[in-house]
Amino acid sequence: MQISINANRCEPSPMRKFHPLAVAAEKNGKKIYHLNIGQPDLETPPAYYETIRNFNQKTLAYDASPGNPLLIDAIRKYYAGLGVSLEPNDVLVTTGGSEALLLTCLSILDPYTEVIIPEPYYPNYTTFVHAAGGVIRALPTNPWEGYRYAQRERIESQITRNTRAILITNPGNPTGVVLDQDEMRMIADIAKEHDLFLICDEVYREFCYDDKFGVPTMARFDDIQDNLVIIDSVSKRFSACGARVGAVITKNKELQQAVLKFCQSRLSVATIDQQGAAALYSVGTEFFQRSKAEYRRRRDTVISGLRRIPGVVVEEPMGAFYVMASLPVDDSDKFQKWLLQEFDDHGDTVMFAPGAPFYETPGKGINEVRIAYVLKQQDLERAMEVLAAGIAAYQKKVMHVTSPSIDG
Amino acid sequence: MQISINANRCEPSPMRKFHPLAVAAEKNGKKIYHLNIGQPDLETPPAYYETIRNFNQKTLAYDASPGNPLLIDAIRKYYAGLGVSLEPNDVLVTTGGSEALLLTCLSILDPYTEVIIPEPYYPNYTTFVHAAGGVIRALPTNPWEGYRYAQRERIESQITRNTRAILITNPGNPTGVVLDQDEMRMIADIAKEHDLFLICDEVYREFCYDDKFGVPTMARFDDIQDNLVIIDSVSKRFSACGARVGAVITKNKELQQAVLKFCQSRLSVATIDQQGAAALYSVGTEFFQRSKAEYRRRRDTVISGLRRIPGVVVEEPMGAFYVMASLPVDDSDKFQKWLLQEFDDHGDTVMFAPGAPFYETPGKGINEVRIAYVLKQQDLERAMEVLAAGIAAYQKKVMHVTSPSIDG
Repeated sequence: MQISINANRCEPSPMRKFHPLAVAAEKNGKKIYHLNIGQPDLETPPAYYETIRNFNQKTLAYDASPGNPLLIDAIRKYYAGLGVSLEPNDVLVTTGGSEALLLTCLSILDPYTEVIIPEPYYPNYTTFVHAAGGVIRALPTNPWEGYRYAQRERIESQITRNTRAILITNPGNPTGVVLDQDEMRMIADIAKEHDLFLICDEVYREFCYDDKFGVPTMARFDDIQDNLVIIDSVSKRFSACGARVGAVITKNKELQQAVLKFCQSRLSVATIDQQGAAALYSVGTEFFQRSKAEYRRRRDTVISGLRRIPGVVVEEPMGAFYVMASLPVDDSDKFQKWLLQEFDDHGDTVMFAPGAPFYETPGKGINEVRIAYVLKQQDLERAMEVLAAGIAAYQKKVMHVTSPSIDG
Repeated sequence: MQISINANRCEPSPMRKFHPLAVAAEKNGKKIYHLNIGQPDLETPPAYYETIRNFNQKTLAYDASPGNPLLIDAIRKYYAGLGVSLEPNDVLVTTGGSEALLLTCLSILDPYTEVIIPEPYYPNYTTFVHAAGGVIRALPTNPWEGYRYAQRERIESQITRNTRAILITNPGNPTGVVLDQDEMRMIADIAKEHDLFLICDEVYREFCYDDKFGVPTMARFDDIQDNLVIIDSVSKRFSACGARVGAVITKNKELQQAVLKFCQSRLSVATIDQQGAAALYSVGTEFFQRSKAEYRRRRDTVISGLRRIPGVVVEEPMGAFYVMASLPVDDSDKFQKWLLQEFDDHGDTVMFAPGAPFYETPGKGINEVRIAYVLKQQDLERAMEVLAAGIAAYQKKVMHVTSPSIDG
């Protein structure tokens, strides 16, 4: 028996691979500040729970394969509010944005075909692209440029005869980069001119911390309807990750048919969660305003905390709820293990996602980390203190640095 | 832009492709007896709903990627009741049996590698195998042999250097074939001797209509632990299809690691549904006894109804809740369209799943159908009357047969 080549090409999740060490540390009485997973702590709107409590069908049946019609209507109405008109067939409901990405990759990638993705990127993209036999062609960026990638020549230089798609996350995970209108238009033009799919993972759309961005979506560009695939989800928008409700949104008819075949093969998305998700769309825009204001404060806390640590390189992220930073350590993976196994500051330690798996290019990101600012203000403040103490102790005990910072 | 080769190799679901015609027929006031989808009508145990109503976490968070620990414990306890001992890592919770199959295929199949599957088989297997670039090598059977396939030479003759796995459904969908102990042992031996994965889709395990079968599972064979992959689900066992909770169960460590990587990439199965599913495992075996007795009565109703129709070839299925039958029509796909668009018997018509998509071999199954006996007794009786009337009318009006039966 043997494991498939594509499965062997995938890596364990960097956000989750330290889970066993974390469990052991907690067993030993350590308190861990979890900055490793983008699991928001904000309350899910009560409409979700009310709806599922009122579910009164005696048999929990499959729902329609392309998605519950009420949920599809709710999503269309939400997009209408963004100025985007969708037909019912343009929305295919999926088990989270994760399934939306997997089914899109299975639908458009053949073995050895390529997807251009700015790096660092969400590491699970690797699994989705590799599952389909595809190859990630990384578009390099740098911490000292704030990880920005939207330059025409940079992107076009990565296009080959094997390129099938450009995949961007906007706002970006892990970088927090948000594209402005001109940048979005430029990338849309590239996709159109080169006849490529443009996969836009816009699950963090509501989290942009400068009003000039509004609620950005590529879906407003009518002229790239055949190219565009939007990856959507209720997870972050409504703080409802455990619902596992997302969508592939596309007007490309061939792609709709292909994704629908995969949707039919897995019968339906969870029935009750779809009804709960439909109810979520009834919450007003104040909900988004409140969430955004809260995350903006948290971002400011994390950024000022990071900037107080000598040797950290970080730019202020403009969206999502992550910050990618370069730390003054030799290897953030090794540092994370050490934080869990060897270190505590008055019983506390901290988890982040080590940077290397966010890169395709070998050797990049080794001293970088992704921090998810999804904890309460005072917990974040404490987490930054613990991180600062951890870096200082690690430099001294493991790296044998004698000055207070490796830059110093 | 182009659609992937593997997506193009998939077909729309035969169980769901007539959905638009059905909607149109219902709009025109027709009543449709749905025998096309294996959606049980039995009530889901109230424990499910009670649990989800009592869910009281304010934030609907991701659950653990390999599955909720309480659910994994419940599954292990259930298997212990079958005489099978499982470690927590042997169970990977998935979004239904569907995801269990997809992740298994992605984990063990490379392009052009083969899976041996007795045909007719559950058509969605095609999509899962094709998604991974694999090829189905069909093991032929015949209606007049009751679709039985468990003969060593028949199975071994399909093994090639590209074979990675044997996939069986036991009890069978669509055929209702149940393997006896000797047949199970023989297939286990083949997998072991030829170093193949043995994927056993056992989601209908509780539905065997002869006591000699007990509750069959390959998991009792300790000597094939490295070969065996059990596909499991709460959908049929607890009449809870809409929960979308299933599992990959395997003791093969390499496969566990591969499937876990895919599980991590999609973060988690729906949180609330996993808690509901864990509660389902608290219902006693009386629940299974009652369900089985009900389905056995329904099977008898369908079989006697079918046997009253001249020209129908059918054997009594011994498990699951499907019967595959050969009808005296030229083309069951064409017949289904006609039933929805042209026919009614006092306002009633009937839906089944046309047979051809259950076969890999071109030309086979064209006049066969799969009937899911998932309706109440009196509805099934009426459905059989409508089917008989439909066949008679179709023979006369479309096939221009003048005698009462094409066999007559």
